[in-house]
Amino acid sequence: MKSQLEPISRRAQAVAPFLAMDVMAAAAAKARSGASVIRMEVGQPSAPAPRAVIAAAQAALADGRVPYTEALGIPALRERIARHYAETYGVAVPPERVVVTTGSSAGFILAFLSLFDAGARVGVPQPGYPAYRSILTALDLVPVPMALQRADRFAPTSALIRDAHGQGGLDGVLVMSPANPSGTVIEPARLAELCATAKALRLPFISDEIYHGLSYGVPTATALQFEPDAVIINSFSKFYCMTGWRIGWMVVPEALVRPIERLAQNLYISAPYLSQVAALAAFDTLDEIGAIRDGYAENRTILLDALPGLGLGETHPVDGAFYLYADVGRLTNDATAFCRRMLDEAGVAATPGLDFDPVEGHHHVRFSFAGSREECVEAVKRLRAWLG
Amino acid sequence: MKSQLEPISRRAQAVAPFLAMDVMAAAAAKARSGASVIRMEVGQPSAPAPRAVIAAAQAALADGRVPYTEALGIPALRERIARHYAETYGVAVPPERVVVTTGSSAGFILAFLSLFDAGARVGVPQPGYPAYRSILTALDLVPVPMALQRADRFAPTSALIRDAHGQGGLDGVLVMSPANPSGTVIEPARLAELCATAKALRLPFISDEIYHGLSYGVPTATALQFEPDAVIINSFSKFYCMTGWRIGWMVVPEALVRPIERLAQNLYISAPYLSQVAALAAFDTLDEIGAIRDGYAENRTILLDALPGLGLGETHPVDGAFYLYADVGRLTNDATAFCRRMLDEAGVAATPGLDFDPVEGHHHVRFSFAGSREECVEAVKRLRAWLG
Repeated sequence: MKSQLEPISRRAQAVAPFLAMDVMAAAAAKARSGASVIRMEVGQPSAPAPRAVIAAAQAALADGRVPYTEALGIPALRERIARHYAETYGVAVPPERVVVTTGSSAGFILAFLSLFDAGARVGVPQPGYPAYRSILTALDLVPVPMALQRADRFAPTSALIRDAHGQGGLDGVLVMSPANPSGTVIEPARLAELCATAKALRLPFISDEIYHGLSYGVPTATALQFEPDAVIINSFSKFYCMTGWRIGWMVVPEALVRPIERLAQNLYISAPYLSQVAALAAFDTLDEIGAIRDGYAENRTILLDALPGLGLGETHPVDGAFYLYADVGRLTNDATAFCRRMLDEAGVAATPGLDFDPVEGHHHVRFSFAGSREECVEAVKRLRAWLG
Repeated sequence: MKSQLEPISRRAQAVAPFLAMDVMAAAAAKARSGASVIRMEVGQPSAPAPRAVIAAAQAALADGRVPYTEALGIPALRERIARHYAETYGVAVPPERVVVTTGSSAGFILAFLSLFDAGARVGVPQPGYPAYRSILTALDLVPVPMALQRADRFAPTSALIRDAHGQGGLDGVLVMSPANPSGTVIEPARLAELCATAKALRLPFISDEIYHGLSYGVPTATALQFEPDAVIINSFSKFYCMTGWRIGWMVVPEALVRPIERLAQNLYISAPYLSQVAALAAFDTLDEIGAIRDGYAENRTILLDALPGLGLGETHPVDGAFYLYADVGRLTNDATAFCRRMLDEAGVAATPGLDFDPVEGHHHVRFSFAGSREECVEAVKRLRAWLG
């Protein structure tokens, strides 16, 4: 027994704030007060979900029944996700290995809890999605940063995995492609090599593929093409514009299915019903989604053309996702204060780099270009006036 | 570093299946095959959410935007929940202390992670909601059973808390009223005494109030009436018939708000948007919900009149929730096999007591009476034919 003199757990105290969410709360409050704010802080499409997705939810609502589902998800949705792997990547995935989750958030929690015991060390990209570090910390696991280099396009390397394993050891490794915040796509040959490296070291390989479908002229591969036992995390949030629906999925090795089912039964009961029914329609909306992606491509060009000239440097190609991870070292060494002023003075919300990288983040800012073209144009205009 | 020869974590292996969910999967599969199954295994109302709730979701869907929200929830919903405490219990709760969660499931995870570090021991009622044990186990915490007695109406006592604290120590205590699976309501004076006992022992007090509103002729109190620092877990799932929406809430001490916000940002991003918007309408549907509760009261009478005579014994008054926790010791000493046969042979799905009590559960079965009157009548008819 530990005395409860201190009412807040050490692990909760160790979890850093998710700055993008804090900026979002500040931006939302500012917008509610009537101010005009261009929202580039959170990775969420401004486009609504595809029409067929919304129609499916409307039909379910009209019926009225919104029940719990099986913990691993509605069977039809698991089957449809499995078919997606055959259609998109030519990989055969049995529906039994698909787990429907409450967003990728639940996917990470289920992956980490099913694979790792307290104290286990998991290699994570840095810069990277901040929740990796925080979820691992909250679950008494140890995030081991793999320091990606701008000079190497922020792509992970086998050397980084080996180095992290050599220093204190690893129990697993996680990579993401296309990446947040860098937009970097790991080229298929490189991904195959990373899988092989993890396998040689006997490390479970977790592949965060939430931005799949969002790439600009480069091919993307799923880790399943190279490592059948990889744990895949994905979601309908980004490509299918379904953020607030909280619906995602995993593909897991057969041996993990039942342990994950037991965890999911107890930790989630099931993913939201309406979101599951709606997601079933998502895969067949590629025309509509393709047009949205084309819009991101235009936004990307607008920002890449304008921002570096304003001191918001971006030197790598941004080949996927919908982020520009700008080096603002010419303007500030305190990106958090910089973002606060940018919101207050220019009405542009973006996320300070410390969210993604506690070491180099102080001179980085992430801009999301998942909004409309008009918003991107207006943001450039405001930033030019503010910085010019 | 621990070697990854065994790919499944010890904690995942230690999590028991949620048998109600397993029975649900079996019952759903049987129903899909065309068989007639009376579903009394899962605690979920057969009634849809109130009309105003569905209408609010429909209006939000028509607008199309389904975004992430602030991690602690839409401000208007937090305010409305706070007002509910003033209106229903006469307790002043500032909206800032309200946390909107993805069902009560997320509430438990956030409460446990924010209050306890690995190894902490938490007193939980037995029989009780099985996810208490499993979530604690998954998070490297230790559930300490407080063995409730049928002779004492399955109500927790201060003596049970003191006994558990005396044997190995406690770091916190959790109680539930109205209770699952017993239906027992802790009378207000008893709840006040339990709060005082926990306070004297300096134990955080977690009060699961998910079945509040569902009681039959007895008063219910919130722990906040007696202990302002209690951590309250609640949900729209049961009273407001919103199970598959996955939406609930917590009320937490001020010192926990920011730690829980950081955890929620990283572990959940936000609760499902449509469910939050819909829940905002829930509190103003008491006429409709009252009629549904009256239906449960009739179902309760039907089952209490019929089941004991069939050997499905029930000796305490079932003063809340929508469960009958029958002692089936006259019929079997293997309630799990009994439930399997009951599903296969009688077409009635119910949950074996081992879900709720690893010690005494083998001779208990939980029946949910949250379905329609017709279903209850038909279930009695089938059970009479099967057992008679």
